[in-house]
Amino acid sequence: MADILHRVGIKASSVDAVYQALTTRDGLAGWWTTNTTGEGDKTGNVIQFRFGAGGFDMRVKTLKTNELVEWKLAEGPEEWMPTTVRFELAQDGEYVIVLFKHLDWKEPIEFMHHCSTKWAVFLMSLKALVETGTGNPDPIDIKIDNWN
Amino acid sequence: MADILHRVGIKASSVDAVYQALTTRDGLAGWWTTNTTGEGDKTGNVIQFRFGAGGFDMRVKTLKTNELVEWKLAEGPEEWMPTTVRFELAQDGEYVIVLFKHLDWKEPIEFMHHCSTKWAVFLMSLKALVETGTGNPDPIDIKIDNWN
Repeated sequence: MADILHRVGIKASSVDAVYQALTTRDGLAGWWTTNTTGEGDKTGNVIQFRFGAGGFDMRVKTLKTNELVEWKLAEGPEEWMPTTVRFELAQDGEYVIVLFKHLDWKEPIEFMHHCSTKWAVFLMSLKALVETGTGNPDPIDIKIDNWN
Repeated sequence: MADILHRVGIKASSVDAVYQALTTRDGLAGWWTTNTTGEGDKTGNVIQFRFGAGGFDMRVKTLKTNELVEWKLAEGPEEWMPTTVRFELAQDGEYVIVLFKHLDWKEPIEFMHHCSTKWAVFLMSLKALVETGTGNPDPIDIKIDNWN
């Protein structure tokens, strides 16, 4: 198994703003993809994320208010099945630290390298959304390579 | 063991420009840290990279012109010892694809999460350097969290 791991620090006076950006449709649409359907505020809910190049459905697996958001892939590209996506949140001084994990890739394939870089760019978009009110969700996301 | 993996695509008509940015002092200083000493164009050479928050020495382990650059950490923070950094290069249409690997972390510690995101930001700086002539090396690098 192989994992994608990231850490960003978001300047915010409370964890709640970050938690909202990870659990509401409008929040998710503000940093990941504008084409988001569904709410992420209840376990069992399915959120549909669609991109120019395809998409996936995430089932909300675990929620701890202002601490943890965990999704399990419900539908998506075969390489993403059955991976888990986790955001762990903690306040550290003036920052909210997000520890991000996309766990349990069967193999460290080239597509995983792409997704690792792309997750970093989207997490920087989450940081920008919370800090400035404006993120870079698909389709105005920052392109990293010929797979977008 | 745990690995950091990334993939960026750089719009360039030949791989050589990317290879130069990975094997010359001026290239490395243009995207990673301005405080770079040493040349990376011969195996066995040691390149010294210094940042505001510390630094490391990399020994050039393997070179295949326009295909592969591999470094082994010679001196650095304990968590980075004895990791290996690899850049695999290949032309794909109008892009040079960089497959990046920072291999053999003993544990997936929080500092590894930070380095994963920071590598993505620096690889985007490499992309910008080759595509536009201007990167974002330390100390004008893009800050990702409270560890910089």
